Amino acid sequence: MPEMNDAFEEIEKHRAQIDEIDRELVALLNKRAGHSLVIRGLKPEAKMGLFDAKREEEILVKVTGYNEGPLYNENLREIYSTILKVMKETPSL
Amino acid sequence: MPEMNDAFEEIEKHRAQIDEIDRELVALLNKRAGHSLVIRGLKPEAKMGLFDAKREEEILVKVTGYNEGPLYNENLREIYSTILKVMKETPSL
Repeated sequence: MPEMNDAFEEIEKHRAQIDEIDRELVALLNKRAGHSLVIRGLKPEAKMGLFDAKREEEILVKVTGYNEGPLYNENLREIYSTILKVMKETPSL
Repeated sequence: MPEMNDAFEEIEKHRAQIDEIDRELVALLNKRAGHSLVIRGLKPEAKMGLFDAKREEEILVKVTGYNEGPLYNENLREIYSTILKVMKETPSL
């Protein structure tokens, strides 16, 4: 069944590209966490509370503003809810 | 209070860098979703089921393998659980 093998090979190629994207995503998420931890450390000095609902909403608005699909804004909102939740849980440096 | 203003300015700089990272993250997540949708379209031809628990576990293992911190592996697993869930929910192209 040549078509079946062709389709499988195509899938493998796309999976290899996804693996490459995941490598970049992990690096960026860690870079983001690094900035987030520095900010957390600076907040007491800046007399700012650790949790900032306005900033979280601002992030979600920006993120959906960058969106060119195929993900829907609600998909990105869901991913970012988890990202922002996790960033808050990461222990300080 | 100069220290307070300095700390606030520092925070603003890190937030600007986070905004830049978020722009890249959104682009990468959409690129990932594009490959994911192509794969979904090819699966029937390749006689593969739409859901592949082995591949999902493989992704989580790879992702934590790329991890150099400060995020913990469990943080990345949580983010990726949402990413993989959302990718499955995205309507086909």
